[in-house]
Amino acid sequence: MPPEDSAPDAGSDADALETDYSFLGRALRRRNAAAFVHVGDRFDDDMRYLTRFGGPDRPYAFVYCNGTATLCAPTLFDDQARREFPGDDVRVANQGDAAGRRAAAVLDDAGASGTVLVPQHVPHDAAVYLENAGFEVASTAAVADARAVKTDAELNRIRRVQRAAARGVARVEAVLYDAAVDGDELVWQGGPLSTERIRRQVNEVLAAHGVSDAGNTVVGAGASAADLHFTGVDAVRPRETVLVDVSPRGPDGYYGDMTRTFAVDPDGGWERRAYVAVEAAREAALAELEAGVAASTVHEEASAELAAYGFRVDDDAVGFTHSTGHGVGVSLHEAPALSGDDELEAGTVVTVEPGVYDPDEGGVRLEDLVVVTDDGYELLGEYPFGLVPRSRGD
Amino acid sequence: MPPEDSAPDAGSDADALETDYSFLGRALRRRNAAAFVHVGDRFDDDMRYLTRFGGPDRPYAFVYCNGTATLCAPTLFDDQARREFPGDDVRVANQGDAAGRRAAAVLDDAGASGTVLVPQHVPHDAAVYLENAGFEVASTAAVADARAVKTDAELNRIRRVQRAAARGVARVEAVLYDAAVDGDELVWQGGPLSTERIRRQVNEVLAAHGVSDAGNTVVGAGASAADLHFTGVDAVRPRETVLVDVSPRGPDGYYGDMTRTFAVDPDGGWERRAYVAVEAAREAALAELEAGVAASTVHEEASAELAAYGFRVDDDAVGFTHSTGHGVGVSLHEAPALSGDDELEAGTVVTVEPGVYDPDEGGVRLEDLVVVTDDGYELLGEYPFGLVPRSRGD
Repeated sequence: MPPEDSAPDAGSDADALETDYSFLGRALRRRNAAAFVHVGDRFDDDMRYLTRFGGPDRPYAFVYCNGTATLCAPTLFDDQARREFPGDDVRVANQGDAAGRRAAAVLDDAGASGTVLVPQHVPHDAAVYLENAGFEVASTAAVADARAVKTDAELNRIRRVQRAAARGVARVEAVLYDAAVDGDELVWQGGPLSTERIRRQVNEVLAAHGVSDAGNTVVGAGASAADLHFTGVDAVRPRETVLVDVSPRGPDGYYGDMTRTFAVDPDGGWERRAYVAVEAAREAALAELEAGVAASTVHEEASAELAAYGFRVDDDAVGFTHSTGHGVGVSLHEAPALSGDDELEAGTVVTVEPGVYDPDEGGVRLEDLVVVTDDGYELLGEYPFGLVPRSRGD
Repeated sequence: MPPEDSAPDAGSDADALETDYSFLGRALRRRNAAAFVHVGDRFDDDMRYLTRFGGPDRPYAFVYCNGTATLCAPTLFDDQARREFPGDDVRVANQGDAAGRRAAAVLDDAGASGTVLVPQHVPHDAAVYLENAGFEVASTAAVADARAVKTDAELNRIRRVQRAAARGVARVEAVLYDAAVDGDELVWQGGPLSTERIRRQVNEVLAAHGVSDAGNTVVGAGASAADLHFTGVDAVRPRETVLVDVSPRGPDGYYGDMTRTFAVDPDGGWERRAYVAVEAAREAALAELEAGVAASTVHEEASAELAAYGFRVDDDAVGFTHSTGHGVGVSLHEAPALSGDDELEAGTVVTVEPGVYDPDEGGVRLEDLVVVTDDGYELLGEYPFGLVPRSRGD
């Protein structure tokens, strides 16, 4: 049983997860639109944000009209919808109808007409139902924009999930510290170590802390550490870099995201230089973070630092091959992107994750989550640094 | 380290996960259409089936035209797309464009014109891109229909995931067997047992076997066992029913689904009668299963059996409140529904999961996965029955 303070479900009433729908009212006024509608299932993160409802894998509808937020609850989920939805009305009428048709019925009852705003990825059949009911459908990015700035209750969810992610990383460091070098093999608990064995160790720790691995745990070793999304099986050998990227999801839908890189018995070559350079790039990126800064500045500073250490920053296979970071919330990747031109706002949560890769050498990435503040940033969860695994007494 | 034979990633070459696209060719001919297009991200299960690609959480496109299956790979995922996509062409051109626009470009290059078929939930912006490029967009259920009938390679994935689900259930039985009755508390490893502690035990076991809990593990006790989708925290007490529904997802995207119900020190009242009735309903449902039978027959037989035992089958809160089963594949819920009128086909995989509930008493459900065959069914994964937890020597 993990310590109680790590329970990601330990929210108090004061910490209740609400959604402030006033941004929808502003979007409607700005576009002279009558209503906002979205349709999606439990895997649609805009729906998760709008409804806070962990519903089924079939579509349901959210409607905002005349200042009223309505969830058209799917069959068998009435009670759960009433428990979880922070809006005004849970509607159970016409549960057999398609979600888009049910949304149109809500608008009819409200006497709405004219333009209905939707996220651009609203299911096509839902848009057609609205059009057939006489509405003009237009897309809005208002939900994605609103999601970028986090409330305290959201930050608390992310902190808790990130603590679990750090425990997953700690397990990896402990396993690598325990592993014995046997020629060109690393042996742990009687067998050769593999990325799959490490991944299962991480995911067990995440489960023990009440969060889901969400299919996201990336463990690469040597060449596969240079593969940004490696989820296969590879031997983990002495001297090569072992990259572990842990992005669990908590029960309220918020993600954590943390990466550390280790090497057992490194020979002091590429991986040492890479680690030092990536640590410096991390510091350079963090130093730029504050509200009002152009997101691209953060990426440019990290790139400049890595270039100063002699790593390429202009290739898609060798060197710094990706952006410095991305927003994290109810999606693992959301606004803002740290390579974009937008100014960072206070309350946005982003990864800072410089890395360098070389298929002939390996990969080194160091990733943390931060919330941007008016005068800098706050780290959301911490884990120590160091290429060589050490015993940390836990 | 779990036994090697439980590794869900242990597929051999002969067991490679392919997708036979000929159903798309037939759908196009039937509808006199030029092409099929879908757009979605890693959470879209039709995309998963069509591409076998565990891509990112941003949209990418699949196009089938002139007998050629094309995946428009998202930025940073070229290599993974080439590794995983069983179709003909991985296209990396115009990776900065919207997925719908990239799909339209593939159709332009192929000289296509006329009607393009899409799943009805294709993102609206993708449909609009296709319409703006001069195509008529029409929806098809061909993908959902094709998914219902499983290949041997798919059945092997489901068997492996279901084995992991059974290990999760085994852990619950072991925990409940070990737990000590202390007044109206169940005490395990020094603390009172809760649904959350049990859920974490299950999810640890799933992680150790290389599958994800997928946020699906439902554990209810007493009144919360009558709540079909309970994911909260509740005390687990002696005498009350403890319902555990485990639906993990394997690394190739296929789900398992198994439910068992236990009670520690039951008093022989409602929960005994419910267990006997549900076992009988399970047998009655299984006895109906074979290719050619109307799916609704299976549900009717299970209902009749439960009614014969005196349980209600006509209410949405008390008695048998849901359908007897649903298809399982790359979605946890897919075609066929066991309450529908369609005839069952050989190769469809369905849950058989009768249950009875009473918020004043608890809930009992027994769920297994089966594949329908020409002359009956085959159980995919097994776990013993019995209301009272016992030691099973593992």
